[in-house]
Amino acid sequence: MENNQGRTVYILSGPAGVGKTTTSKELVKKLSACAYISGDDISHMHVIGRKNPWESEEETSLIWDNILSLTKNFLWYGNDVVVDYVTFPHQAIWLYDNLRNSNVRVVYVVLWADQDTLIERDSKRLREHRMGERCLLLADEFKKSGLDEKYLLSTTEGTKSENEYIIDEIISNAKFRIKGCELVETSNI
Amino acid sequence: MENNQGRTVYILSGPAGVGKTTTSKELVKKLSACAYISGDDISHMHVIGRKNPWESEEETSLIWDNILSLTKNFLWYGNDVVVDYVTFPHQAIWLYDNLRNSNVRVVYVVLWADQDTLIERDSKRLREHRMGERCLLLADEFKKSGLDEKYLLSTTEGTKSENEYIIDEIISNAKFRIKGCELVETSNI
Repeated sequence: MENNQGRTVYILSGPAGVGKTTTSKELVKKLSACAYISGDDISHMHVIGRKNPWESEEETSLIWDNILSLTKNFLWYGNDVVVDYVTFPHQAIWLYDNLRNSNVRVVYVVLWADQDTLIERDSKRLREHRMGERCLLLADEFKKSGLDEKYLLSTTEGTKSENEYIIDEIISNAKFRIKGCELVETSNI
Repeated sequence: MENNQGRTVYILSGPAGVGKTTTSKELVKKLSACAYISGDDISHMHVIGRKNPWESEEETSLIWDNILSLTKNFLWYGNDVVVDYVTFPHQAIWLYDNLRNSNVRVVYVVLWADQDTLIERDSKRLREHRMGERCLLLADEFKKSGLDEKYLLSTTEGTKSENEYIIDEIISNAKFRIKGCELVETSNI
């Protein structure tokens, strides 16, 4: 019954304001069977007793257990999965390790934009969704995470042709596919 | 580490327009640690290749696998869980059976209102969320499902005092707790 073969999990990461959700929505249109998992939505299912995930390891662990469970189920039913969430390299590796036996490909892309762009995009959100300074703190955290630069993909321009290029890269460029524990602090292949 | 003890899963069911979401939001406020799972939100994570769950057993099965996985995770981390979804008796039993070993209580409530109330509430929704005739078809399906009437709870009045009564009943009235396979076609206890 299992129908995982040849399926792909796309993790679209990066700091707030970088275009994760917009890019995810464009990406799913190119796939024939697909689930879209918003890490923020998963996180907010914990309505009472929730802590800020960036301040609580337990909360973060709960969110990732939920993302993993959903991902496994959607794969089992023959779908690709797009995960839209601030995902650090060790979290992408954790997901990859937990899916390793199911013969699926894991694509990890850290979308990136310059600081001015991040701040400008943040200011255009609804007030309750604005991240403020955390935008830049998050960008710093990625820089310090030892992330291999090959996983970065720029969204600074925000033009239509750039968007098309981004989707093509995510789907086709093999450098974004996690192959093992080579994600952190290695040179480019 | 497991922290399931004494936890409760509340399944708030009933046809569209009966007040599942409103009641869920009131219920979670009374709980100290709690997740809210909207079956509709889970269903719509399947963005490409999704079938209407009422026309596809596979789609329904995927949705329930996802609800079960999330429920188990939230329980594991010490939360009660409120499931807001059109849930027929056999689905409530399935969830109960799959949680039986984890020593949690499963409360099953089928909210109910008369036909005029259902149609009126449906007409007040945003156009894209209106169910139209399916409201009444759903109400019929519940009637035909062999549901024990003790699981019904009326929301017809929609008054504040009725709302408070409903929440009290859901939390305190033992008749809503599933005890085994006595859910369908049995006399009242």
